[in-house]
Amino acid sequence: MKLARCSYHETGSFWAVVDPLRDEVHPIEGEFSTWAPAVAGGAGISALRLSGMTLPLSKVHLLPPIEPVNRVVVAGANYAKHLAEDFGLAAPAQPVAFLKAYGALIGAHDPIRYPPLTEELDHEVELVVVIGSAEIDLENPLGCVLGYTVGNDVSSRDLQRSGPAGIGMDLFAAKSQDRTTSVGPWVVTKDEFPEGSPKVRLTLKVNGETRQDGSTAEMTWDVGQLIRFVQQRSSFACGDILFTGSPAGVGMGTGLFLNPGDVVEATIEGIGTLRNVVSEKSRV
Amino acid sequence: MKLARCSYHETGSFWAVVDPLRDEVHPIEGEFSTWAPAVAGGAGISALRLSGMTLPLSKVHLLPPIEPVNRVVVAGANYAKHLAEDFGLAAPAQPVAFLKAYGALIGAHDPIRYPPLTEELDHEVELVVVIGSAEIDLENPLGCVLGYTVGNDVSSRDLQRSGPAGIGMDLFAAKSQDRTTSVGPWVVTKDEFPEGSPKVRLTLKVNGETRQDGSTAEMTWDVGQLIRFVQQRSSFACGDILFTGSPAGVGMGTGLFLNPGDVVEATIEGIGTLRNVVSEKSRV
Repeated sequence: MKLARCSYHETGSFWAVVDPLRDEVHPIEGEFSTWAPAVAGGAGISALRLSGMTLPLSKVHLLPPIEPVNRVVVAGANYAKHLAEDFGLAAPAQPVAFLKAYGALIGAHDPIRYPPLTEELDHEVELVVVIGSAEIDLENPLGCVLGYTVGNDVSSRDLQRSGPAGIGMDLFAAKSQDRTTSVGPWVVTKDEFPEGSPKVRLTLKVNGETRQDGSTAEMTWDVGQLIRFVQQRSSFACGDILFTGSPAGVGMGTGLFLNPGDVVEATIEGIGTLRNVVSEKSRV
Repeated sequence: MKLARCSYHETGSFWAVVDPLRDEVHPIEGEFSTWAPAVAGGAGISALRLSGMTLPLSKVHLLPPIEPVNRVVVAGANYAKHLAEDFGLAAPAQPVAFLKAYGALIGAHDPIRYPPLTEELDHEVELVVVIGSAEIDLENPLGCVLGYTVGNDVSSRDLQRSGPAGIGMDLFAAKSQDRTTSVGPWVVTKDEFPEGSPKVRLTLKVNGETRQDGSTAEMTWDVGQLIRFVQQRSSFACGDILFTGSPAGVGMGTGLFLNPGDVVEATIEGIGTLRNVVSEKSRV
Protein backbone atom coordinates (compact mmCIF):
# COMPACT_ATOMS: atom_id res chain seq x y z
CA MET A 1 0.00 0.00 0.00
CA LYS A 2 1.22 3.49 -0.91
CA LEU A 3 0.39 6.36 1.46
CA ALA A 4 1.01 9.97 0.55
CA ARG A 5 0.53 13.35 2.17
CA CYS A 6 -1.01 15.70 -0.34
CA SER A 7 -2.79 18.93 -0.96
CA TYR A 8 -5.40 19.60 -3.64
CA HIS A 9 -6.09 23.16 -4.67
CA GLU A 10 -6.61 25.04 -1.39
CA THR A 11 -7.90 22.18 0.75
CA GLY A 12 -4.97 22.01 3.17
CA SER A 13 -2.96 18.83 3.63
CA PHE A 14 -4.37 15.32 3.94
CA TRP A 15 -3.10 11.74 3.87
CA ALA A 16 -4.29 9.36 1.18
CA VAL A 17 -3.90 5.92 -0.31
CA VAL A 18 -2.46 6.41 -3.78
CA ASP A 19 -2.65 4.15 -6.82
CA PRO A 20 -0.18 5.46 -9.41
CA LEU A 21 -1.22 2.93 -12.08
CA ARG A 22 -4.84 4.14 -11.98
CA ASP A 23 -3.83 7.78 -11.33
CA GLU A 24 -5.99 7.70 -8.19
CA VAL A 25 -5.79 9.25 -4.73
CA HIS A 26 -8.17 8.11 -1.96
CA PRO A 27 -8.12 10.52 1.01
CA ILE A 28 -7.98 9.02 4.49
CA GLU A 29 -10.16 10.38 7.32
CA GLY A 30 -8.64 11.14 10.72
CA GLU A 31 -5.23 12.27 11.92
CA PHE A 32 -2.10 10.29 10.98
CA SER A 33 -1.53 9.32 14.63
CA THR A 34 -5.01 7.73 14.86
CA TRP A 35 -4.44 5.14 12.10
CA ALA A 36 -0.66 4.82 11.59
CA PRO A 37 -0.01 2.55 14.62
CA ALA A 38 -2.58 0.00 13.36
CA VAL A 39 -1.05 0.01 9.86
CA ALA A 40 2.45 -0.35 11.35
CA GLY A 41 1.02 -3.26 13.35
CA GLY A 42 -0.01 -5.03 10.14
CA ALA A 43 -3.74 -4.22 9.92
CA GLY A 44 -3.41 -3.06 6.30
CA ILE A 45 -6.07 -1.01 4.57
CA SER A 46 -8.74 -2.27 6.99
CA ALA A 47 -7.27 0.17 9.55
CA LEU A 48 -8.15 3.11 7.31
CA ARG A 49 -11.41 4.99 6.96
CA LEU A 50 -11.43 6.33 3.41
CA SER A 51 -13.46 9.43 2.61
CA GLY A 52 -15.06 7.80 -0.43
CA MET A 53 -13.80 10.60 -2.66
CA THR A 54 -11.34 9.85 -5.49
CA LEU A 55 -8.93 12.47 -6.84
CA PRO A 56 -6.54 12.24 -9.81
CA LEU A 57 -2.97 11.68 -8.58
CA SER A 58 -1.69 13.78 -11.46
CA LYS A 59 -3.61 16.83 -10.13
CA VAL A 60 -2.56 16.46 -6.50
CA HIS A 61 0.44 18.20 -4.94
CA LEU A 62 2.67 15.66 -3.18
CA LEU A 63 3.94 16.98 0.17
CA PRO A 64 6.73 15.57 2.35
CA PRO A 65 5.18 12.55 4.13
CA ILE A 66 5.61 14.03 7.62
CA GLU A 67 3.51 16.44 9.72
CA PRO A 68 5.13 19.73 10.82
CA VAL A 69 5.03 18.67 14.49
CA ASN A 70 7.23 15.64 13.76
CA ARG A 71 10.96 15.59 13.60
CA VAL A 72 13.42 14.64 10.90
CA VAL A 73 16.29 12.53 12.22
CA VAL A 74 19.29 11.84 10.01
CA ALA A 75 21.63 8.96 10.75
CA GLY A 76 24.72 9.62 8.67
CA ALA A 77 28.06 7.90 8.15
CA ASN A 78 26.30 4.66 7.27
CA TYR A 79 27.99 3.67 4.00
CA ALA A 80 31.72 3.00 4.41
CA LYS A 81 32.56 3.60 0.74
CA HIS A 82 30.80 7.01 0.78
CA LEU A 83 32.78 8.02 3.86
CA ALA A 84 36.09 6.79 2.45
CA GLU A 85 35.75 8.01 -1.16
CA ASP A 86 33.78 11.20 -0.59
CA PHE A 87 35.17 12.41 2.75
CA GLY A 88 38.42 10.47 3.28
CA LEU A 89 37.09 9.19 6.61
CA ALA A 90 37.40 5.75 8.23
CA ALA A 91 34.19 3.93 9.16
CA PRO A 92 33.17 5.06 12.68
CA ALA A 93 32.60 2.69 15.58
CA GLN A 94 28.95 3.73 15.95
CA PRO A 95 26.33 5.65 13.98
CA VAL A 96 25.93 9.40 14.31
CA ALA A 97 22.56 11.14 14.29
CA PHE A 98 21.37 14.72 14.06
CA LEU A 99 18.17 16.66 13.44
CA LYS A 100 17.14 18.40 10.23
CA ALA A 101 14.76 21.38 10.30
CA TYR A 102 11.24 20.67 8.99
CA GLY A 103 11.48 23.82 6.87
CA ALA A 104 14.24 22.15 4.83
CA LEU A 105 11.76 19.68 3.34
CA ILE A 106 10.08 19.84 -0.07
CA GLY A 107 7.76 17.45 -1.90
CA ALA A 108 8.70 14.93 -4.57
CA HIS A 109 8.32 17.34 -7.49
CA ASP A 110 9.01 20.72 -5.88
CA PRO A 111 11.98 22.88 -6.90
CA ILE A 112 15.18 22.55 -4.87
CA ARG A 113 16.02 26.01 -3.55
CA TYR A 114 19.66 26.94 -4.22
CA PRO A 115 20.62 28.71 -0.95
CA PRO A 116 22.61 31.95 -1.19
CA LEU A 117 25.51 31.04 1.13
CA THR A 118 26.78 27.96 -0.71
CA GLU A 119 28.80 27.27 -3.84
CA GLU A 120 28.82 23.47 -3.32
CA LEU A 121 25.27 22.16 -3.37
CA ASP A 122 25.30 18.36 -3.32
CA HIS A 123 22.89 15.41 -3.48
CA GLU A 124 22.46 12.34 -1.27
CA VAL A 125 19.85 9.70 -2.14
CA GLU A 126 18.71 7.93 1.03
CA LEU A 127 16.23 5.34 2.22
CA VAL A 128 13.91 7.12 4.66
CA VAL A 129 12.07 5.23 7.39
CA VAL A 130 8.62 6.45 8.51
CA ILE A 131 7.89 5.67 12.16
CA GLY A 132 4.24 4.63 12.64
CA SER A 133 4.12 4.10 16.39
CA ALA A 134 5.66 5.64 19.49
CA GLU A 135 5.79 2.17 21.06
CA ILE A 136 9.37 1.23 20.21
CA ASP A 137 10.50 -2.24 21.22
CA LEU A 138 14.31 -2.23 21.29
CA GLU A 139 14.25 -6.00 20.75
CA ASN A 140 12.07 -5.59 17.64
CA PRO A 141 12.78 -2.08 16.37
CA LEU A 142 11.25 -2.73 12.93
CA GLY A 143 7.88 -3.28 14.62
CA CYS A 144 7.28 0.47 14.85
CA VAL A 145 7.94 1.08 11.16
CA LEU A 146 5.02 2.18 9.00
CA GLY A 147 7.00 1.98 5.78
CA TYR A 148 9.71 3.51 3.63
CA THR A 149 10.10 6.48 1.35
CA VAL A 150 12.84 8.21 -0.66
CA GLY A 151 14.90 11.20 0.47
CA ASN A 152 17.42 13.45 -1.22
CA ASP A 153 19.41 14.97 1.67
CA VAL A 154 20.69 17.97 -0.30
CA SER A 155 23.77 19.34 1.47
CA SER A 156 26.02 22.39 1.23
CA ARG A 157 29.54 21.00 1.48
CA ASP A 158 31.35 24.32 1.95
CA LEU A 159 29.08 25.16 4.88
CA GLN A 160 29.48 21.62 6.23
CA ARG A 161 33.24 22.25 6.44
CA SER A 162 32.75 25.66 8.11
CA GLY A 163 32.15 24.15 11.57
CA PRO A 164 34.69 25.08 14.26
CA ALA A 165 37.74 22.87 14.81
CA GLY A 166 37.18 20.64 17.82
CA ILE A 167 33.40 20.82 17.51
CA GLY A 168 33.00 19.34 14.06
CA MET A 169 31.05 19.54 10.83
CA ASP A 170 28.33 22.20 10.67
CA LEU A 171 25.53 19.80 9.78
CA PHE A 172 22.85 22.40 10.60
CA ALA A 173 24.14 24.89 8.03
CA ALA A 174 24.81 22.09 5.53
CA LYS A 175 21.51 20.24 5.81
CA SER A 176 18.76 22.43 7.33
CA GLN A 177 18.56 25.13 4.67
CA ASP A 178 15.03 26.10 3.67
CA ARG A 179 13.33 24.01 0.94
CA THR A 180 16.29 21.91 -0.15
CA THR A 181 15.55 18.29 0.92
CA SER A 182 13.08 16.32 -1.18
CA VAL A 183 11.10 13.50 0.46
CA GLY A 184 8.44 11.23 -1.06
CA PRO A 185 6.74 10.60 -3.38
CA TRP A 186 4.84 8.34 -0.96
CA VAL A 187 5.37 5.83 1.83
CA VAL A 188 5.36 2.17 0.77
CA THR A 189 4.16 0.16 3.78
CA LYS A 190 6.64 -2.37 5.11
CA ASP A 191 4.46 -5.41 4.23
CA GLU A 192 5.51 -4.86 0.60
CA PHE A 193 9.15 -5.64 1.49
CA PRO A 194 10.62 -8.97 2.61
CA GLU A 195 10.99 -9.18 6.41
CA GLY A 196 13.96 -7.40 7.94
CA SER A 197 15.84 -4.30 6.91
CA PRO A 198 15.08 -3.51 3.23
CA LYS A 199 17.76 -4.47 0.74
CA VAL A 200 17.00 -2.26 -2.23
CA ARG A 201 18.86 -0.41 -4.94
CA LEU A 202 19.12 3.40 -4.72
CA THR A 203 20.21 5.56 -7.61
CA LEU A 204 20.57 9.26 -8.23
CA LYS A 205 20.76 10.89 -11.65
CA VAL A 206 21.56 14.47 -12.58
CA ASN A 207 20.27 15.46 -16.03
CA GLY A 208 19.92 11.76 -16.81
CA GLU A 209 23.50 10.86 -15.83
CA THR A 210 23.90 8.37 -13.00
CA ARG A 211 25.87 9.80 -10.06
CA GLN A 212 24.97 7.42 -7.22
CA ASP A 213 24.15 3.73 -7.62
CA GLY A 214 24.19 1.66 -4.46
CA SER A 215 22.20 -0.73 -2.33
CA THR A 216 20.87 -0.41 1.19
CA ALA A 217 22.49 -3.83 1.70
CA GLU A 218 25.79 -1.88 1.96
CA MET A 219 24.66 -0.05 5.11
CA THR A 220 27.05 -0.38 8.03
CA TRP A 221 24.06 -0.38 10.43
CA ASP A 222 20.72 -1.66 9.19
CA VAL A 223 17.38 0.07 9.78
CA GLY A 224 16.69 -1.79 13.03
CA GLN A 225 20.09 -0.87 14.46
CA LEU A 226 19.65 2.78 13.51
CA ILE A 227 16.19 2.98 15.10
CA ARG A 228 17.57 1.45 18.29
CA PHE A 229 20.57 3.81 18.32
CA VAL A 230 18.37 6.90 17.98
CA GLN A 231 15.65 5.68 20.36
CA GLN A 232 18.17 5.04 23.14
CA ARG A 233 19.28 8.67 22.85
CA SER A 234 16.06 10.56 22.07
CA SER A 235 12.62 8.96 21.72
CA PHE A 236 10.75 8.76 18.45
CA ALA A 237 7.17 9.95 18.15
CA CYS A 238 4.61 8.45 15.78
CA GLY A 239 5.20 10.16 12.43
CA ASP A 240 8.89 10.99 12.82
CA ILE A 241 11.09 10.09 9.86
CA LEU A 242 14.64 8.76 9.79
CA PHE A 243 17.14 9.26 6.98
CA THR A 244 19.58 6.35 6.86
CA GLY A 245 22.67 7.60 5.04
CA SER A 246 23.78 7.78 1.42
CA PRO A 247 26.02 5.60 -0.77
CA ALA A 248 29.15 6.80 -2.59
CA GLY A 249 29.12 9.06 -5.63
CA VAL A 250 28.20 12.49 -4.28
CA GLY A 251 29.75 15.73 -5.52
CA MET A 252 31.95 15.95 -2.44
CA GLY A 253 33.96 13.05 -3.89
CA THR A 254 33.59 13.69 -7.63
CA GLY A 255 33.65 17.51 -7.66
CA LEU A 256 30.38 17.50 -9.62
CA PHE A 257 28.04 19.73 -7.60
CA LEU A 258 24.47 20.76 -8.43
CA ASN A 259 23.76 23.79 -10.60
CA PRO A 260 20.64 25.86 -11.29
CA GLY A 261 18.44 24.09 -13.82
CA ASP A 262 19.74 20.61 -13.04
CA VAL A 263 17.12 17.86 -13.04
CA VAL A 264 17.77 15.60 -10.05
CA GLU A 265 16.12 12.18 -9.92
CA ALA A 266 16.46 10.01 -6.80
CA THR A 267 15.02 6.53 -7.12
CA ILE A 268 14.64 3.58 -4.77
CA GLU A 269 13.42 0.33 -6.30
CA GLY A 270 10.05 -0.71 -4.98
CA ILE A 271 9.28 2.79 -3.73
CA GLY A 272 9.50 5.48 -6.40
CA THR A 273 11.31 8.51 -7.76
CA LEU A 274 11.82 12.06 -6.59
CA ARG A 275 12.23 14.45 -9.49
CA ASN A 276 13.27 17.95 -8.55
CA VAL A 277 14.75 20.82 -10.55
CA VAL A 278 17.36 23.09 -8.95
CA SER A 279 16.20 26.73 -8.87
CA GLU A 280 18.18 29.82 -9.69
CA LYS A 281 20.43 30.81 -6.81
CA SER A 282 18.35 32.48 -4.12
CA ARG A 283 19.41 35.97 -3.01
CA VAL A 284 17.86 35.63 0.46
CA MET B 1 5.25 41.63 31.06
CA LYS B 2 5.77 37.96 31.90
CA LEU B 3 4.22 35.34 29.60
CA ALA B 4 4.10 31.67 30.51
CA ARG B 5 2.86 28.49 28.91
CA CYS B 6 0.99 26.50 31.53
CA SER B 7 -1.39 23.68 32.26
CA TYR B 8 -3.93 23.56 35.09
CA HIS B 9 -5.33 20.23 36.16
CA GLU B 10 -6.38 18.51 32.92
CA THR B 11 -7.16 21.60 30.86
CA GLY B 12 -4.41 21.20 28.26
CA SER B 13 -1.79 23.86 27.68
CA PHE B 14 -2.44 27.59 27.45
CA TRP B 15 -0.45 30.82 27.42
CA ALA B 16 -0.96 33.39 30.15
CA VAL B 17 0.22 36.68 31.59
CA VAL B 18 1.70 35.86 35.00
CA ASP B 19 2.15 38.10 38.02
CA PRO B 20 4.42 36.27 40.48
CA LEU B 21 4.09 38.97 43.20
CA ARG B 22 0.30 38.52 43.29
CA ASP B 23 0.47 34.76 42.60
CA GLU B 24 -1.79 35.32 39.58
CA VAL B 25 -2.10 33.78 36.14
CA HIS B 26 -4.32 35.41 33.49
CA PRO B 27 -4.94 33.07 30.53
CA ILE B 28 -4.67 34.52 27.02
CA GLU B 29 -7.22 33.65 24.33
CA GLY B 30 -6.07 32.60 20.86
CA GLU B 31 -3.05 30.80 19.49
CA PHE B 32 0.48 32.07 20.25
CA SER B 33 1.04 32.92 16.58
CA THR B 34 -2.03 35.20 16.52
CA TRP B 35 -0.78 37.58 19.22
CA ALA B 36 3.00 37.11 19.53
CA PRO B 37 3.95 39.21 16.46
CA ALA B 38 2.04 42.23 17.84
CA VAL B 39 3.71 41.89 21.26
CA ALA B 40 7.13 41.49 19.58
CA GLY B 41 6.25 44.66 17.64
CA GLY B 42 5.78 46.59 20.89
CA ALA B 43 1.98 46.60 21.32
CA GLY B 44 2.25 45.38 24.92
CA ILE B 45 -0.69 43.93 26.80
CA SER B 46 -3.14 45.73 24.51
CA ALA B 47 -2.36 43.05 21.88
CA LEU B 48 -3.72 40.35 24.18
CA ARG B 49 -7.29 39.19 24.73
CA LEU B 50 -7.41 37.86 28.28
CA SER B 51 -9.99 35.26 29.20
CA GLY B 52 -11.05 37.17 32.32
CA MET B 53 -10.30 34.16 34.51
CA THR B 54 -7.59 34.35 37.19
CA LEU B 55 -5.72 31.27 38.42
CA PRO B 56 -3.20 30.99 41.26
CA LEU B 57 0.34 30.79 39.85
CA SER B 58 1.30 28.44 42.67
CA LYS B 59 -1.28 25.89 41.45
CA VAL B 60 -0.36 26.03 37.77
CA HIS B 61 2.12 23.72 36.05
CA LEU B 62 4.73 25.74 34.17
CA LEU B 63 5.52 24.20 30.76
CA PRO B 64 8.43 25.00 28.44
CA PRO B 65 7.45 28.28 26.72
CA ILE B 66 7.38 26.79 23.23
CA GLU B 67 4.73 24.88 21.27
CA PRO B 68 5.55 21.32 20.09
CA VAL B 69 5.48 22.41 16.42
CA ASN B 70 8.29 24.88 17.02
CA ARG B 71 11.97 24.16 16.99
CA VAL B 72 14.71 24.55 19.55
CA VAL B 73 17.89 26.02 18.06
CA VAL B 74 21.08 26.04 20.11
CA ALA B 75 23.94 28.37 19.23
CA GLY B 76 26.91 27.05 21.15
CA ALA B 77 30.56 28.04 21.49
CA ASN B 78 29.56 31.58 22.41
CA TYR B 79 31.60 32.18 25.59
CA ALA B 80 35.37 32.03 24.98
CA LYS B 81 36.24 31.25 28.61
CA HIS B 82 33.81 28.29 28.69
CA LEU B 83 35.36 26.91 25.50
CA ALA B 84 38.94 27.40 26.75
CA GLU B 85 38.53 26.26 30.38
CA ASP B 86 35.90 23.55 29.92
CA PHE B 87 36.82 22.11 26.51
CA GLY B 88 40.38 23.32 25.81
CA LEU B 89 39.19 24.88 22.55
CA ALA B 90 40.13 28.17 20.91
CA ALA B 91 37.34 30.64 20.13
CA PRO B 92 35.91 29.77 16.67
CA ALA B 93 35.71 32.22 13.79
CA GLN B 94 31.91 31.99 13.60
CA PRO B 95 29.04 30.64 15.75
CA VAL B 96 27.86 27.06 15.45
CA ALA B 97 24.20 26.06 15.66
CA PHE B 98 22.29 22.81 15.95
CA LEU B 99 18.78 21.58 16.74
CA LYS B 100 17.58 20.09 20.02
CA ALA B 101 14.63 17.68 20.11
CA TYR B 102 11.41 19.11 21.59
CA GLY B 103 11.08 15.97 23.73
CA ALA B 104 14.24 17.00 25.59
CA LEU B 105 12.40 19.94 27.19
CA ILE B 106 10.92 20.12 30.70
CA GLY B 107 9.26 22.93 32.63
CA ALA B 108 10.84 25.17 35.24
CA HIS B 109 10.10 22.88 38.19
CA ASP B 110 10.00 19.44 36.56
CA PRO B 111 12.50 16.70 37.44
CA ILE B 112 15.59 16.36 35.24
CA ARG B 113 15.60 12.81 33.89
CA TYR B 114 18.99 11.12 34.37
CA PRO B 115 19.40 9.21 31.07
CA PRO B 116 20.68 5.62 31.22
CA LEU B 117 23.58 5.91 28.75
CA THR B 118 25.55 8.65 30.51
CA GLU B 119 27.83 8.91 33.54
CA GLU B 120 28.63 12.59 32.97
CA LEU B 121 25.45 14.63 33.21
CA ASP B 122 26.27 18.32 33.12
CA HIS B 123 24.53 21.72 33.41
CA GLU B 124 24.65 24.84 31.20
CA VAL B 125 22.71 27.95 32.18
CA GLU B 126 21.80 29.96 29.07
CA LEU B 127 19.87 33.00 28.01
CA VAL B 128 17.11 31.77 25.70
CA VAL B 129 15.55 34.02 23.07
CA VAL B 130 11.88 33.56 22.13
CA ILE B 131 11.14 34.49 18.52
CA GLY B 132 7.78 36.26 18.23
CA SER B 133 7.55 36.84 14.50
CA ALA B 134 8.58 35.03 11.34
CA GLU B 135 9.35 38.40 9.74
CA ILE B 136 13.09 38.57 10.39
CA ASP B 137 14.87 41.72 9.29
CA LEU B 138 18.58 40.91 9.02
CA GLU B 139 19.34 44.62 9.54
CA ASN B 140 17.30 44.66 12.76
CA PRO B 141 17.32 41.06 14.02
CA LEU B 142 16.14 42.00 17.53
CA GLY B 143 12.87 43.27 16.02
CA CYS B 144 11.49 39.72 15.84
CA VAL B 145 12.21 38.96 19.51
CA LEU B 146 9.23 38.48 21.82
CA GLY B 147 11.37 38.24 24.93
CA TYR B 148 13.81 36.19 26.94
CA THR B 149 13.68 33.17 29.21
CA VAL B 150 16.10 30.90 31.08
CA GLY B 151 17.44 27.55 29.85
CA ASN B 152 19.51 24.81 31.42
CA ASP B 153 20.97 22.92 28.45
CA VAL B 154 21.69 19.70 30.36
CA SER B 155 24.33 17.72 28.44
CA SER B 156 25.88 14.26 28.58
CA ARG B 157 29.58 14.87 28.12
CA ASP B 158 30.64 11.25 27.59
CA LEU B 159 28.09 10.93 24.78
CA GLN B 160 29.17 14.32 23.41
CA ARG B 161 32.69 12.89 22.99
CA SER B 162 31.40 9.68 21.38
CA GLY B 163 30.95 11.28 17.94
CA PRO B 164 33.09 9.87 15.13
CA ALA B 165 36.51 11.40 14.41
CA GLY B 166 36.29 13.71 11.41
CA ILE B 167 32.56 14.32 11.92
CA GLY B 168 32.66 15.84 15.38
CA MET B 169 30.89 16.05 18.71
CA ASP B 170 27.68 14.00 19.02
CA LEU B 171 25.50 16.94 20.03
CA PHE B 172 22.30 14.96 19.37
CA ALA B 173 23.15 12.25 21.90
CA ALA B 174 24.53 14.82 24.34
CA LYS B 175 21.70 17.34 24.20
CA SER B 176 18.47 15.79 22.86
CA GLN B 177 17.85 13.19 25.53
CA ASP B 178 14.24 12.98 26.74
CA ARG B 179 13.17 15.35 29.55
CA THR B 180 16.56 16.79 30.45
CA THR B 181 16.53 20.48 29.40
CA SER B 182 14.65 22.91 31.61
CA VAL B 183 13.23 26.10 30.08
CA GLY B 184 11.21 28.86 31.73
CA PRO B 185 9.77 29.82 34.13
CA TRP B 186 8.28 32.47 31.79
CA VAL B 187 9.19 34.81 28.97
CA VAL B 188 10.00 38.37 29.99
CA THR B 189 9.10 40.60 27.05
CA LYS B 190 11.95 42.57 25.57
CA ASP B 191 10.54 45.98 26.55
CA GLU B 192 11.63 45.22 30.13
CA PHE B 193 15.30 45.21 29.04
CA PRO B 194 17.37 48.16 27.83
CA GLU B 195 17.58 48.30 24.02
CA GLY B 196 20.04 45.96 22.34
CA SER B 197 21.27 42.52 23.28
CA PRO B 198 20.54 41.89 27.01
CA LYS B 199 23.51 42.27 29.36
CA VAL B 200 22.46 40.27 32.38
CA ARG B 201 24.03 38.03 35.00
CA LEU B 202 23.46 34.25 34.76
CA THR B 203 24.23 31.89 37.62
CA LEU B 204 23.83 28.20 38.23
CA LYS B 205 23.84 26.56 41.63
CA VAL B 206 23.92 22.88 42.55
CA ASN B 207 22.63 22.17 46.06
CA GLY B 208 23.11 25.86 46.87
CA GLU B 209 26.73 25.99 45.69
CA THR B 210 27.50 28.35 42.82
CA ARG B 211 28.99 26.56 39.79
CA GLN B 212 28.46 29.07 36.98
CA ASP B 213 28.45 32.85 37.40
CA GLY B 214 28.75 34.88 34.24
CA SER B 215 27.19 37.65 32.21
CA THR B 216 25.66 37.64 28.75
CA ALA B 217 27.93 40.65 28.16
CA GLU B 218 30.72 38.05 27.73
CA MET B 219 29.08 36.53 24.65
CA THR B 220 31.32 36.35 21.60
CA TRP B 221 28.26 37.00 19.37
CA ASP B 222 25.35 38.95 20.76
CA VAL B 223 21.70 37.96 20.37
CA GLY B 224 21.24 39.94 17.17
CA GLN B 225 24.29 38.35 15.55
CA LEU B 226 23.14 34.85 16.53
CA ILE B 227 19.63 35.39 15.13
CA ARG B 228 21.15 36.63 11.87
CA PHE B 229 23.57 33.68 11.70
CA VAL B 230 20.79 31.12 12.16
CA GLN B 231 18.27 32.90 9.92
CA GLN B 232 20.73 33.00 7.00
CA ARG B 233 21.06 29.21 7.26
CA SER B 234 17.55 28.03 8.22
CA SER B 235 14.55 30.32 8.75
CA PHE B 236 12.95 30.90 12.11
CA ALA B 237 9.21 30.49 12.60
CA CYS B 238 7.15 32.48 15.10
CA GLY B 239 7.54 30.67 18.44
CA ASP B 240 10.95 29.08 17.85
CA ILE B 241 13.45 29.50 20.67
CA LEU B 242 17.20 30.05 20.54
CA PHE B 243 19.68 29.01 23.23
CA THR B 244 22.67 31.35 23.19
CA GLY B 245 25.52 29.44 24.87
CA SER B 246 26.76 29.02 28.42
CA PRO B 247 29.52 30.68 30.48
CA ALA B 248 32.42 28.83 32.12
CA GLY B 249 32.06 26.61 35.18
CA VAL B 250 30.38 23.45 33.89
CA GLY B 251 31.27 19.94 35.09
CA MET B 252 33.22 19.28 31.88
CA GLY B 253 35.87 21.68 33.22
CA THR B 254 35.56 21.13 36.98
CA GLY B 255 34.83 17.38 37.02
CA LEU B 256 31.73 18.08 39.15
CA PHE B 257 28.88 16.40 37.26
CA LEU B 258 25.22 16.15 38.29
CA ASN B 259 24.01 13.33 40.52
CA PRO B 260 20.54 11.95 41.37
CA GLY B 261 18.91 14.13 44.02
CA ASP B 262 20.87 17.27 43.14
CA VAL B 263 18.89 20.50 43.27
CA VAL B 264 19.85 22.59 40.23
CA GLU B 265 18.96 26.27 40.16
CA ALA B 266 19.59 28.33 37.03
CA THR B 267 18.93 32.06 37.39
CA ILE B 268 19.06 35.03 35.06
CA GLU B 269 18.62 38.44 36.62
CA GLY B 270 15.49 40.20 35.49
CA ILE B 271 13.94 36.94 34.29
CA GLY B 272 13.71 34.25 36.98
CA THR B 273 14.92 30.89 38.24
CA LEU B 274 14.61 27.31 37.05
CA ARG B 275 14.66 24.89 39.97
CA ASN B 276 14.89 21.24 38.98
CA VAL B 277 15.82 18.12 40.91
CA VAL B 278 17.82 15.37 39.20
CA SER B 279 15.91 12.04 39.19
CA GLU B 280 17.25 8.61 39.94
CA LYS B 281 19.07 7.18 36.94
CA SER B 282 16.56 5.98 34.37
CA ARG B 283 16.80 2.35 33.23
CA VAL B 284 15.15 3.02 29.85
